Amino acid sequence: MTTVGFIGLGIMGRGMARNLIKAGFELHVWNRTAGPTTELAAEGAVAAASPADLAAQCEIVIACVSNTEAVQAVLLGPSGVIEGARAGSLVIDMSTISPSATREIAARLGERGVHMLDAPVSGGSEGAARGTLTIMAGGPPEQFARALPVLQAMGKNIFHVGDHGAGQLVKLVNQILVVGNALAMSEALLFAQAAGLDLRKTLETVSSGAAGSWMLSNRGPKILARDWRPGFMIDLQQKDLRLALAAADEMGIPMLCTSLVSNLYSTLQAEGLGREGNHALIKALEKLAGVEVGAQPG
Amino acid sequence: MTTVGFIGLGIMGRGMARNLIKAGFELHVWNRTAGPTTELAAEGAVAAASPADLAAQCEIVIACVSNTEAVQAVLLGPSGVIEGARAGSLVIDMSTISPSATREIAARLGERGVHMLDAPVSGGSEGAARGTLTIMAGGPPEQFARALPVLQAMGKNIFHVGDHGAGQLVKLVNQILVVGNALAMSEALLFAQAAGLDLRKTLETVSSGAAGSWMLSNRGPKILARDWRPGFMIDLQQKDLRLALAAADEMGIPMLCTSLVSNLYSTLQAEGLGREGNHALIKALEKLAGVEVGAQPG
Amino acid sequence: MTTVGFIGLGIMGRGMARNLIKAGFELHVWNRTAGPTTELAAEGAVAAASPADLAAQCEIVIACVSNTEAVQAVLLGPSGVIEGARAGSLVIDMSTISPSATREIAARLGERGVHMLDAPVSGGSEGAARGTLTIMAGGPPEQFARALPVLQAMGKNIFHVGDHGAGQLVKLVNQILVVGNALAMSEALLFAQAAGLDLRKTLETVSSGAAGSWMLSNRGPKILARDWRPGFMIDLQQKDLRLALAAADEMGIPMLCTSLVSNLYSTLQAEGLGREGNHALIKALEKLAGVEVGAQPG
Amino acid sequence: MTTVGFIGLGIMGRGMARNLIKAGFELHVWNRTAGPTTELAAEGAVAAASPADLAAQCEIVIACVSNTEAVQAVLLGPSGVIEGARAGSLVIDMSTISPSATREIAARLGERGVHMLDAPVSGGSEGAARGTLTIMAGGPPEQFARALPVLQAMGKNIFHVGDHGAGQLVKLVNQILVVGNALAMSEALLFAQAAGLDLRKTLETVSSGAAGSWMLSNRGPKILARDWRPGFMIDLQQKDLRLALAAADEMGIPMLCTSLVSNLYSTLQAEGLGREGNHALIKALEKLAGVEVGAQPG
Repeated sequence: MTTVGFIGLGIMGRGMARNLIKAGFELHVWNRTAGPTTELAAEGAVAAASPADLAAQCEIVIACVSNTEAVQAVLLGPSGVIEGARAGSLVIDMSTISPSATREIAARLGERGVHMLDAPVSGGSEGAARGTLTIMAGGPPEQFARALPVLQAMGKNIFHVGDHGAGQLVKLVNQILVVGNALAMSEALLFAQAAGLDLRKTLETVSSGAAGSWMLSNRGPKILARDWRPGFMIDLQQKDLRLALAAADEMGIPMLCTSLVSNLYSTLQAEGLGREGNHALIKALEKLAGVEVGAQPG
Repeated sequence: MTTVGFIGLGIMGRGMARNLIKAGFELHVWNRTAGPTTELAAEGAVAAASPADLAAQCEIVIACVSNTEAVQAVLLGPSGVIEGARAGSLVIDMSTISPSATREIAARLGERGVHMLDAPVSGGSEGAARGTLTIMAGGPPEQFARALPVLQAMGKNIFHVGDHGAGQLVKLVNQILVVGNALAMSEALLFAQAAGLDLRKTLETVSSGAAGSWMLSNRGPKILARDWRPGFMIDLQQKDLRLALAAADEMGIPMLCTSLVSNLYSTLQAEGLGREGNHALIKALEKLAGVEVGAQPG
Repeated sequence: MTTVGFIGLGIMGRGMARNLIKAGFELHVWNRTAGPTTELAAEGAVAAASPADLAAQCEIVIACVSNTEAVQAVLLGPSGVIEGARAGSLVIDMSTISPSATREIAARLGERGVHMLDAPVSGGSEGAARGTLTIMAGGPPEQFARALPVLQAMGKNIFHVGDHGAGQLVKLVNQILVVGNALAMSEALLFAQAAGLDLRKTLETVSSGAAGSWMLSNRGPKILARDWRPGFMIDLQQKDLRLALAAADEMGIPMLCTSLVSNLYSTLQAEGLGREGNHALIKALEKLAGVEVGAQPG
Repeated sequence: MTTVGFIGLGIMGRGMARNLIKAGFELHVWNRTAGPTTELAAEGAVAAASPADLAAQCEIVIACVSNTEAVQAVLLGPSGVIEGARAGSLVIDMSTISPSATREIAARLGERGVHMLDAPVSGGSEGAARGTLTIMAGGPPEQFARALPVLQAMGKNIFHVGDHGAGQLVKLVNQILVVGNALAMSEALLFAQAAGLDLRKTLETVSSGAAGSWMLSNRGPKILARDWRPGFMIDLQQKDLRLALAAADEMGIPMLCTSLVSNLYSTLQAEGLGREGNHALIKALEKLAGVEVGAQPG
């Protein structure tokens, strides 16, 4: 069976790595800090001394780290994957990072005969643990085919969406939709609250028709309960929005809605709410309106 | 069986009236212009000489006309319902109009012992024809109970959402969500197009997860096909947004997203696109970006 | 000398009327409430029993009232100017009202042989008292020439800007600029505050160059002193913005900046700050940012 | 007299350097490309082989280059100023760059006993040529005093606004105001055009009062003449806005107006208009509205 390496054992990576072990892959792991490596080693993984060392042992190397700089470091930096990877091996970057940086990394790896897929995910830590992630992959079709058994151990809806960078771009499309739907929900619930409507009945009424969205059905009730625990944290959401805004700026595409949301999230981060869920967006509008959703109408 | 009156035989009203005939109600009809009345009379309805005349014959009177002024005219104006309605009868206004005007109309009818429900709908002319409308009703619960058999002949998801005006307010909440989700979709598809993504694969990938919405699943494919035939026309959407913005302005609630969309729709109306579907919102962003979604990437 | 009538002795009208008396005009006055009439009568004006009565005595009739409805009432309503005005006389509406309503009023008066100018002002109650208002007049040039001696008693910068309604439209252009400049100032000062800059030095540095504006030079220092006394009240500013937004909506022109400001002012009105000056706009951004401009950096 | 070094002989730098020669300073120059160095050498400057070489000869070293990376390269990079500068000498960075990068550079130079001022300018190439720039300086007061005679050779309004980075921050405040006032102007002129107003009269009327700004008086007439030659180019304006937006994002300050303008400029850059003046902002609104300002009303 394919030997797989996994770099980055954070909240997401740990769940994904465990699902690879369960699926029977021989798994080598590396993490910037030692704790999670030890933990996974106890569950059957082989601890590697460095990304380069890990790459030397594996046919497929997965990276799942926090941002563009971290991906560049573990893949291309000193003791990075590029120093150990065998010609013909495959790197799958499952982090969400810059699409244009992704293309540069693929080119650099390609010069050494190493293949690459960008394959960011959605579905959160829950999806990572359960193996039900949505995976959006960009890169050569034959590498996608090669990666598929590995990806299927971690995700449920797995799409090949285009060439290098396309996975990252589709992920950003996803995030633009998520926050736009969140803004619509926030504005609508604030209106409902100010109008003195019964919010539970209102949600029930509008969720099933033309106004419906995953966000409204899944996060609307959390807002009513003022439960701000994250599905997906504002800090991470904001990181992805910055990637989307930078890409749009390069392309000369207006992002009126996404810019607005990013401005609102910034104020929440400044208040220390960056670790709340992205549905806490409504708190920015609440500040402005002086109205609290879920409170008894006065 | 209950004798029902129907005022306003437009695209929506005609379908609704037909479903009442099918359900076996004795139906009296009146329309501002004669054509539709003659048509419905040929199908078994009784033509009334005026709203007042119609109200004198019916236990329940439904109005489904184009705006606040039209509702005020047919209910409270000369030869209006108020001049003929029997004490104890019920008026159901299924138009989408101003919530505060609704409360005033209910009060005026109440002075004559006439009951009222506001019961705007969503689901478009198709839903009206098929009897599958969503209906959001405001007013006294016992009047809602009384109206239910009549409403069930026209709609499928029928909700009692609060007192007088609440039906209109929930309808506006619905519209805020609809256009916010449409803006998110427009921005996301424009980004995808500019990035050179395969739009069909992109839609398929993002529609099922956290980015999903009714709008994306039902109108996204229409945008890719550049099919601008309305589900719901920009002119009507814009009329509803003005009601929402006016209500929000009265309440002191910010509507950053809805204002933005309303500005964009205004420019489309000025171009003569008011009779296209509300998903043509994307055309405003296309103008700004100089990019056409669905075109082959250059 | 010309006999002049003045309708509407509010904060603005009183100062303007006094300047007409000083300039030697025989002045007839009418006000909805008696107090100000008595006051002006004590200063030499003749009290009229109604707008119609006043119009019967005067060659030129000035109206300066609060909104479109009030102008329609005093000019066209029962006992209104139209009932008493002599053919060939001139009505000057110095209120800020709807441009399209202005054209309709001019047409109605024209049917009776009564001429009209729309001549809204800027400069506030101070300018009204000192006779230094800016006046923007629309209507036939010969009527402007006829009105000029009267206007010169009240204002300093007097412009004939076009036909009926043009005065109102230029006033709205003025207001769009005022609030846009106020938004720029608010955002810039909030940035400066958050960055820990010395606000007094910052204002001094940027006021004289390409960033300069009347708003920055005249209202910036008031913000630093947190002095919210009005030059021009938010409630009135917001009334004018609604006229501008409605006119733009009719014309299909996007008003992204003005819409944004109007949304922010709405939230301040809901907080009860409608009688503060329009430079209190910054308080809306302060709420959002959790930063207070003028406070010591933390 | 003080020996001065000048790095960066672009459109701005050339004019500034010439004014230093005129003022009698012994001037050493270096530029990334040879042409401008040769030109200035012919006018009396001494050509240096590298920034390090130049720094070794000078008591005061000025840098005026295009962005943060360029400043870091010429000051801290290989053969950079830091390699040649004498302890006790002074570096004045007159580029517009990141405030936080500025603080880091000042710290790095400080470790070698080299002083620093950040002193960005406004006033464009014209102001650079004429020696009438506005200069906003941050850094220790005694270094500002030391630099003053040099700065006075290049500028007219010279301000010491605070510690390291404060010059850059005040420059960003300036740019936020500039583009906000430009947006207000654009929206107002578009409204005026759509309303059929005489634009020249409108400008004349509103420029002198509460709506007035440098932008309106100096760029409004250029818009009417459709003269898009830059005072200040969109590409540079946009570069500065990105710095402002990044700084605001770090501080958690909303920038609703600046974000909006930056989005609009992006679309103009994508159209190839980045070298037009910043007043071409109005073209973005024109695209959206389908209205051209300055055209005869249809």
